[in-house]
Amino acid sequence: MIIAEQLLATAYDEAQLGLREGGIPIGAALFDSAGNLLGRGHNRRIQHDDPSVHAETDAFRAAGRRRDYRDTIMVTTLSPCWYCSGLVRQFGIGAVIVGESRTFTGGHDWLAEHGVSVTVLDDPACVDMMTRFIAERPELWNEDIGVAE
Amino acid sequence: MIIAEQLLATAYDEAQLGLREGGIPIGAALFDSAGNLLGRGHNRRIQHDDPSVHAETDAFRAAGRRRDYRDTIMVTTLSPCWYCSGLVRQFGIGAVIVGESRTFTGGHDWLAEHGVSVTVLDDPACVDMMTRFIAERPELWNEDIGVAE
Repeated sequence: MIIAEQLLATAYDEAQLGLREGGIPIGAALFDSAGNLLGRGHNRRIQHDDPSVHAETDAFRAAGRRRDYRDTIMVTTLSPCWYCSGLVRQFGIGAVIVGESRTFTGGHDWLAEHGVSVTVLDDPACVDMMTRFIAERPELWNEDIGVAE
Repeated sequence: MIIAEQLLATAYDEAQLGLREGGIPIGAALFDSAGNLLGRGHNRRIQHDDPSVHAETDAFRAAGRRRDYRDTIMVTTLSPCWYCSGLVRQFGIGAVIVGESRTFTGGHDWLAEHGVSVTVLDDPACVDMMTRFIAERPELWNEDIGVAE
């Protein structure tokens, strides 16, 4: 049996790695339905000056080319933004596990409406991590989600 | 005055560049509202074995970090898929110019519903380019839009 919290641990580790690099602490990982890791990654806006690398897109890239995503699970520390929600919908990723959606809510309800299995864990460590980051670096956070000044 | 067809020419050049590289011929470019080029790019799934690089995400990356996208125009040879439509919505890109949506329709109507200025040009050269590619390499095309076998 797949334990969602165990899968989240990998995404959380990625977020913490990003934080230690001076980046925005959001991590993600793509697994198959047996719980095998396919790819993991984290937001690299600051580290690479690359606005296109969100945690989910980084994990998706790390998993390489695939012909079928229906059997995969995208695990992310934070509710996926519209960009990352669009990724999940377009590629038919079957399930999404969300660490928390208190500090930000993207498109996970929209994904559920379109048949994606969505689980929101409301994980206290994920909430704490983003709450601190947003309080300390609001300008970076707003930049990362496209909120203009 | 900004002529949509002139902006499309840059995206089309990118698509043709991708085709010559052996890739999927979709190109895009991000401009400001005065028509200044901010970034251009093309799909690199084949070239880099990277499923995360669609034309629009490549152009977005090439434009670098920005604090405000409301004044920008995303020009793409093909209707943006949900992944790329989500990018436009999340970052508040103000306008989208689509070369064609005959061979594929993604989320451009959804973007229009959410306040994005959307123009579909129905450009014959863009239609011809994708029609040929899809006929010649259907497996690559289906892979790129997440259609499983």
